[in-house]
Amino acid sequence: MNKCSAPRLNGSILLQQVRALGEIGADQVNGGRTRIALTDAEKAGRDQLVAWMKELDLDVRVDRIGNIFGTLRSVSDQGDQAPLMMGSHIDTVTNAGALDGCYGVLAALAVARAFREAGVLPSRSITIGTFTNEEGVRYQPDMLGSLVYARGLAVDEALATRGTDGTRLGDELQRIGYAGDLEPGSVIPHEYLELHIEQGPILEAENTQIGVVETLQGISWQRIVVQGNANHAGTTPTRLRHDAGYVACAVVAELRDIAKDSGATTLATVGCMSFEPNVINVIPRRATFTVDLRDPDEALLLSAEKRLSQFLAAISTEEGVQISTEQLVRFQPVTFDAGLADEIEDSAKRCGFSHKRMTSGAGHDAQMIARIAPSAMIFVPSRGGISHNPREHTDDDQLLKGAEVLLDVVVHRLSLTH
Amino acid sequence: MNKCSAPRLNGSILLQQVRALGEIGADQVNGGRTRIALTDAEKAGRDQLVAWMKELDLDVRVDRIGNIFGTLRSVSDQGDQAPLMMGSHIDTVTNAGALDGCYGVLAALAVARAFREAGVLPSRSITIGTFTNEEGVRYQPDMLGSLVYARGLAVDEALATRGTDGTRLGDELQRIGYAGDLEPGSVIPHEYLELHIEQGPILEAENTQIGVVETLQGISWQRIVVQGNANHAGTTPTRLRHDAGYVACAVVAELRDIAKDSGATTLATVGCMSFEPNVINVIPRRATFTVDLRDPDEALLLSAEKRLSQFLAAISTEEGVQISTEQLVRFQPVTFDAGLADEIEDSAKRCGFSHKRMTSGAGHDAQMIARIAPSAMIFVPSRGGISHNPREHTDDDQLLKGAEVLLDVVVHRLSLTH
Repeated sequence: MNKCSAPRLNGSILLQQVRALGEIGADQVNGGRTRIALTDAEKAGRDQLVAWMKELDLDVRVDRIGNIFGTLRSVSDQGDQAPLMMGSHIDTVTNAGALDGCYGVLAALAVARAFREAGVLPSRSITIGTFTNEEGVRYQPDMLGSLVYARGLAVDEALATRGTDGTRLGDELQRIGYAGDLEPGSVIPHEYLELHIEQGPILEAENTQIGVVETLQGISWQRIVVQGNANHAGTTPTRLRHDAGYVACAVVAELRDIAKDSGATTLATVGCMSFEPNVINVIPRRATFTVDLRDPDEALLLSAEKRLSQFLAAISTEEGVQISTEQLVRFQPVTFDAGLADEIEDSAKRCGFSHKRMTSGAGHDAQMIARIAPSAMIFVPSRGGISHNPREHTDDDQLLKGAEVLLDVVVHRLSLTH
Repeated sequence: MNKCSAPRLNGSILLQQVRALGEIGADQVNGGRTRIALTDAEKAGRDQLVAWMKELDLDVRVDRIGNIFGTLRSVSDQGDQAPLMMGSHIDTVTNAGALDGCYGVLAALAVARAFREAGVLPSRSITIGTFTNEEGVRYQPDMLGSLVYARGLAVDEALATRGTDGTRLGDELQRIGYAGDLEPGSVIPHEYLELHIEQGPILEAENTQIGVVETLQGISWQRIVVQGNANHAGTTPTRLRHDAGYVACAVVAELRDIAKDSGATTLATVGCMSFEPNVINVIPRRATFTVDLRDPDEALLLSAEKRLSQFLAAISTEEGVQISTEQLVRFQPVTFDAGLADEIEDSAKRCGFSHKRMTSGAGHDAQMIARIAPSAMIFVPSRGGISHNPREHTDDDQLLKGAEVLLDVVVHRLSLTH
């Protein structure tokens, strides 16, 4: 017997919809599905979602940046009530899994369905928000729709964004029919909840069912270029070298030490690396690489950035190379609403699910909405921590547990009208 | 007054010929000249060289692998005398300098000219050897012509070599008209001398005019592939990572230590590096890089290879990655003939030039010919150690000093017949 509160989750429809949405944009050759923001495939996903919203008789509205909102109105809502919002995104990376973003949107839809099936109305309107271009594959920055919604980026500037394929975001939005008339951010949510797969290995490794996400890491992305001198590998003594490749690698080694010395809170990754001229017997003239630093604590993130910067200055002098850095992304850590996190934890307890308070390593729309409304997130385990990959997987049972917690939190935040 | 022995060097013709040969294949856009082996541009260079040999009434012969020999016959030579050979190559890399190889060939030609102009004949025939495909840009391995000449590679196998452009070496040799009938190595030189620019910074840095090259470094080239796991940069704790990029960089740092700990004899270079998938927020799944290790002492080179191998085994276990290595090139160090090196040193002293005994960091045809005949090399400084580059430069005055030493050594090895 389910110990969660009524209304009850219709788990089979939720799982059916996750699979059905996952078929849209499916890549039969390389696996997974590809629904890059504002492409034809993503339009098909949007159309399906809107159809499902309309089946539940939700009030569907689209704002100027293409965010889609489906609202189940409370009895008292004259159209001006701050809703309890749940949401995420349905755009994907290339050859993605079926869960990233979509799971949160469809679980939110399942919450609305639970109200409809129970024949009750909430004391406050509930809205399912679906934000444009969360993945940032085609248009930069990522989390663009929620950033605009939270007034972190002017809508006209966002519409003028040029994609990697040269297209203008606003034109593509028009083309697929999702350039709405609602002003982004004109409706400020009362609270915001986002359910998501962890996209990391921690819950699975610790055999925990529910993650209560109380913080989201700060992110610092830099591109670093080391300029040395190309010279003959066989004739240049070590002491006379200005080896850009060696310096880049020494930075990578130092970043590992920065991560280790932090006591596991700081993460440091060098994902991109290239040498020039990239010839076996020529000392690299230039090395270009990226640095991804993350920490849930802004002071520790600043400290990691400072240590990196000091290391760059020192090795630049020692090795006689020039080093330039470019900041690509810098987001401060987000502390989610403690009351909402407590509510999620209480719900996990009520439902009998193992749980832990944790930080989100990835970026999510919730970090943008947290700028304008109390927000928090719920995580379920990702098998092997794998995401952005056709092998992304969470057991159905776990998907349902997460949705049950989401529903339970909503029911406990609102009173019901029969 | 020149204190070197007569016959006398005609410096102005030598310098003119260096410039004239350097114009063949000149690249007006990117600088330098490009005479890749067996291309039309290289054929033009060969034709010019042969014309100059014939101007000096040398006996010109071409062998089956396209090596060109111009011989000034001694009085006693019935066509079967082992000659004193001087040589190098005239093929180039892309956008090369004018000196690499060409300087040694043209200085050897200047030695023959000095005999002709003095109206004397040597007691032993002298031969100018010009070896095919030293650079190895189009056909692998490099130093192919001298390797075949020294019977380190069967001529038919060498002729069947496929180039990077899909051409067969033997066909290209036929096409440009340099498939001769002489069997490679049928004439074993009595001794072999090669004059070359240093292609390294040591002579310039130490303000020394002549390098007496007594050894040539052993070379070990490997390609190393590290296979780890791709994972999300923001969600994967450091202790759970299998970061192929980090491991590759740790190897680069270890190689620097290997070089430093050797007391400056071992050189270690990582010239090529690539990460996959090469995405800013994904831990690298795979890193591929090259290692170039060199040492003039085989025991020390073996020791460096062993230390690298042990490091790879240890870090593979520590980081949970797979590492595979492939040996691309392995040449043992060459010790040149001590008597010839002493003769070069004595000559530098007689001529009043500062000199030092040294090792060659780069590979040269002399290392192949050393397998079949006593050999040694003479170096002159390279400005900034730069080579394989349009900025390759040696002052004219230095070019003439090197050629004077070459001539002086030849004159002292032979008696003259007026």
